[in-house]
This record gives sequence, structure tokens and C-alpha cells, in this order.
Amino acid sequence: MKDFPMLIPTYDDVLAAHARIEPYIHRTPVLTSSYLNDLTGAELFFKCENFQKAGAFKVRGACNAVFGLSDEMAAKGVCTHSSGNHALSLSYAAGRRGIPCNVVMPRTAPQAKKDAVRGYGGVITECEPSTSSREAVFAEVQARTGGEFVHPYNDPRVIAGQATCSRELLDQVAGLDAVIAPIGGGGMISGTCLTVSSTAPNVAIYAAEPKNADDAFRSFKAGHIIADDAPETIADGLKVPLKDLTWHFVQNHVTDIFTATEDEIIDAMKLTWKRMKIVMEPSCAVPLATILANPETFRGRRVGVIITGGNVDLDTLPWMKG
Amino acid sequence: MKDFPMLIPTYDDVLAAHARIEPYIHRTPVLTSSYLNDLTGAELFFKCENFQKAGAFKVRGACNAVFGLSDEMAAKGVCTHSSGNHALSLSYAAGRRGIPCNVVMPRTAPQAKKDAVRGYGGVITECEPSTSSREAVFAEVQARTGGEFVHPYNDPRVIAGQATCSRELLDQVAGLDAVIAPIGGGGMISGTCLTVSSTAPNVAIYAAEPKNADDAFRSFKAGHIIADDAPETIADGLKVPLKDLTWHFVQNHVTDIFTATEDEIIDAMKLTWKRMKIVMEPSCAVPLATILANPETFRGRRVGVIITGGNVDLDTLPWMKG
Repeated sequence: MKDFPMLIPTYDDVLAAHARIEPYIHRTPVLTSSYLNDLTGAELFFKCENFQKAGAFKVRGACNAVFGLSDEMAAKGVCTHSSGNHALSLSYAAGRRGIPCNVVMPRTAPQAKKDAVRGYGGVITECEPSTSSREAVFAEVQARTGGEFVHPYNDPRVIAGQATCSRELLDQVAGLDAVIAPIGGGGMISGTCLTVSSTAPNVAIYAAEPKNADDAFRSFKAGHIIADDAPETIADGLKVPLKDLTWHFVQNHVTDIFTATEDEIIDAMKLTWKRMKIVMEPSCAVPLATILANPETFRGRRVGVIITGGNVDLDTLPWMKG
Repeated sequence: MKDFPMLIPTYDDVLAAHARIEPYIHRTPVLTSSYLNDLTGAELFFKCENFQKAGAFKVRGACNAVFGLSDEMAAKGVCTHSSGNHALSLSYAAGRRGIPCNVVMPRTAPQAKKDAVRGYGGVITECEPSTSSREAVFAEVQARTGGEFVHPYNDPRVIAGQATCSRELLDQVAGLDAVIAPIGGGGMISGTCLTVSSTAPNVAIYAAEPKNADDAFRSFKAGHIIADDAPETIADGLKVPLKDLTWHFVQNHVTDIFTATEDEIIDAMKLTWKRMKIVMEPSCAVPLATILANPETFRGRRVGVIITGGNVDLDTLPWMKG
């Protein structure tokens, strides 16, 4: 067994998180589609975090971090770096508590997400679209503001918050055989691992990743973290690498990781919009894309699919490009 | 009082319809948006028929008509003319009963709707996009096939079916002050009138119409039916005129009719996609557009808003044109 220097959240932390954040989040609905069930041969249950406050599951972890701060810590505000949804979720949470929020975002982040951050009262500092630039710019912002750093995923408070999503899902759908979620930095999948391994250990946990940003897939196969600096994928929420805390959950609890090409992601996204009539981000389409590409794994099983967010730029839909 | 030669459905017909169609339809969810509540000053409850089977409320009336046929009548199948959603709803219903379905559609109908009709097994004959051409082509198709004509709205079976939508809405949301729905031929609004006037007579009933196809608005003000032959609006489901049966309900039970410009409709459509994360047709945006344009009527009231369908062409979204 490896020794982990970081604080690993427990299921008690999940229960505490759920009680803490419930006033500020939605218990999102689970939708089904007989068309997609026929197409895949599986029974799919879509947990619609695109309908969540601030438009994404990340508000769960952000609210848990913000509302868990002491008054003294909260007075200095919070800060973070994020490819988008964590930035606006933290801005939402900070706004609800009435404290400052500073966020570092890549200049290439979707305009819809930048607008939403500012709409919730967050202050944006832009960086280049690479992990190295993001971390350098953030160090300056944090030093200047003195705010509490809430990492977008490698933070036990955030993971405990994200874990409330699959707690709801397991309560809403009986007899699931598997859960699948997208994987970027690993916050959602870590929360899923925490809840599922604690309360439904026979349920398989799959992660879905863009082939163009398959660092988690390669890490999983190699047995150690592999990080890429600036991968390019339409699934803009999934470009960031695993960190020690999320790697702990992936390594110990994930059943398997599947990847999908850019075309498969776009096709699955458009198919979901067309048949389920929901607006969701490209990142959310990666699980369905991998289910369609790996039918033998999912056929005949009851599968929870986490739709992670809906903050998409309606003016630049991927199937309209080029 | 005028004398009506047609059969006016009663609330008993609505109860019978609901029992008949329940196995074939969804009880669709009601969604809310704190953003849109803040924006309008009203409490809005969106009845999401875009999540309905076949993607629109029209499946309610179509199923009631199809499953109410005797075996002898059913054997010859059904036929209709429709700007889109009734065509695919009737195809769906006929498919579920295993009987033929012939539909006349304008050649300009969205490709997504034509594809869906064929996907459900319906046979399409195209006409020009005018009421006169539609009726002429349909007469030929009906004579040739001998199928039972299920009118898209001016049919008591269809109106009783559509009325089940507001029956669910009134059950799902307590204490509504008003309901608002789009008006084209008047099938949905007639069903709404039938249920609301029978079970909640103090609830106001508003209809919302594109200014570019405002024949119902002008009929309502004039006190008699005014029909236009080929109005042009982005709200393609709302181009058809009132007929005697729907006019009966509009004249006797509608509180008021509001109109919206094309730009107001497109803005309200995009706003709903962006903030509520749902895919809906331009026609569905007309109620919200009129609420935004007439805030004094709706402020402080609990308003049910019927989102009528989600069968939109994802390749030609109106805010991307030009």
C-alpha cells in the first residue's frame, strides 16, 4: 500500500457535505430515453447535472468548500484556476456566501463560461491554455489576494461535494449495475468512487475520456500518473491531468477507462440533443460515445450516466464548424 | 349563442382520453428557473412537452384518436396533414397500434420532422407551404387510402387528448394563477381551455402567437375567425388558422392573446436553451417572449408555461442565420 500525504475524504465527509450544500443546489432529475436504450441494448439513466445550479455538477464541491470555511477564512475570499465550470461554480458559491472570488481561466475558455463567472460576481484573470501557464498565473493571483485556494478537483472538500451526485443517483435508481462519468482531472469520478465503493461496492465504475486527452487512460494502464501539458479536444472540461488525490481513487476503485474520438464525441452530443432534448457540453457526451463504441460491456446492464454540465457556447456548436 | 354543428368534447372525454393514452405517453416533468423568475418577476412553471414521446404534446391527441378507433376502422389506417409534429405524433401512435399512417407535409417542413415521421413508419406526401395546397393534396391522399382522417387540431378526439397536458400540470403545480400556451390552429389552447375551465375556472388562460402569423389574435379581437393562407414565421408550428371547434374554445375561454416579433421569439428561444439547458422549438419560445414583453400582466403571479415540443433542426438554429 502506498502512503498518501493528502487528506482522503471518507463517506462521513460526503454525508456532511450533502447536509451543508443542500440549500444551494438542485437534486437534479434522472432522465431516460427509450430510443437510446434500443440503440445501445442497455438501460441508461442520465443524471442531469446540466440542470444543476450554475449549470454543472461542480457547484456541489464548490459549495462544500465555501460553506465549510470558518468566518475568518471566508473573509479573505476564495480563488482558483479552472477551465470553466469550477470557476463559475465557485463564483456562484462565493456569491451566495457574500465573499470575494478570484479565478484564473484560459483565454480560450468558452465565452458563455466567462460571462457566467462575471454574472455571479467572480473576477477573472486570463492565462494561456496550458497547465504550466495556468499554474504560474494563479500563483501570482493567490499571492496578491490571499484568498483560500479551492482546487477544481484535487481537494478533499471538492471530492466530498462531487460525491453527493452519485449518492442522489443511487437513491433515485434502484439496481444499477454500473455508473459511467467523464474523466478530466478526476474530481467527479473520485466522488463517484467514494460514494459507490462505500455504499454499493458491486456497482462497476467506468470513466470516459477523449482519445485526444487520454492521460487518465494511459495513467490507469501504466499504474502511475501521466500528465500532458496542453491536449486539444472539443471536450474542453476534460483537458486537465490527474493529481495525487484523484489518482488515489482512480487507481483503487475505477473498473475501466474508455476513450472516444472527437467525431464520436460530437456525434454522441448531437444525438443526445436531438433525442433527449437537453443542452449539454461536449464533455458530457464522452460517456455515451464510449458506450456506443463498446456495446458488449454495457448491453443488458442498468447504467447510470452522469451528464456533467450544460454551459455550452450556443453560437459555436461543434457540428456546425468547418 | 351560436349553434355549433361539431361535437364539443367534455371533461369526461378528457378523463377517458387520459386513461386510454397513459401507456403510450410520458407524464412530462415541470421545470423551473430562478434566473427566469428573477428576470420576469413571475413564478414560471415550464411543462416540458419537448420531453414527450415523439418530441411534442401532439402525441396525446394522436394517441387518443388512434387508440379510440374500432378494429374495423383501424384496419384502414389513419391519415392527416400537418406542419410537422402532428404528422410524426400520428405516425408514432399508428406505429404503436400497428396500422398504416399517411401524412401530407409542406415540402418546407424541417428535415428533422420528416426524418422522424419516416422513422416511425409514416408515409409522407409533400405539398406546397400553404393551407390551400395542403388541403388539395390531402383530399387526393385520403381518397386513395381510405384511412380515417385525424385533423391536427379541429377534432374533438385530438382536443380531448391535448387537454390531458394541463390536467397533469394542474396536478403537478398547486395554486397556479395563469396558464400560457402557444396558439396556431388552437388544439393545445382548446385542450387547455377544456381542462382549466372545467377544473380550475379561476385560472387565467393566455395564448401567445407570432406577430407574423397573428390570425388568432385578430380573430379574437374581431369576434370571428380570420384565416391567412401562408404566413411566414420562424415558429413553424404556428402557421395554421383556427377552425370552428378550436374557435369555440378560444372565443369562450381564452383570457387574452399576446403576440411576439420574430426577434423576440428567437431571443426567448436562445435564452431558454442557455439558462434552462433544454432543446425546444421556436414555437415554444413565443409564450416566454410575450411574458417578457408584457411584464405587468405576469409579475407576482404563478404561471404555467407549456413548452410544446423539441423537434428542432439542430443544423439550422435561427440565431445562426444570416
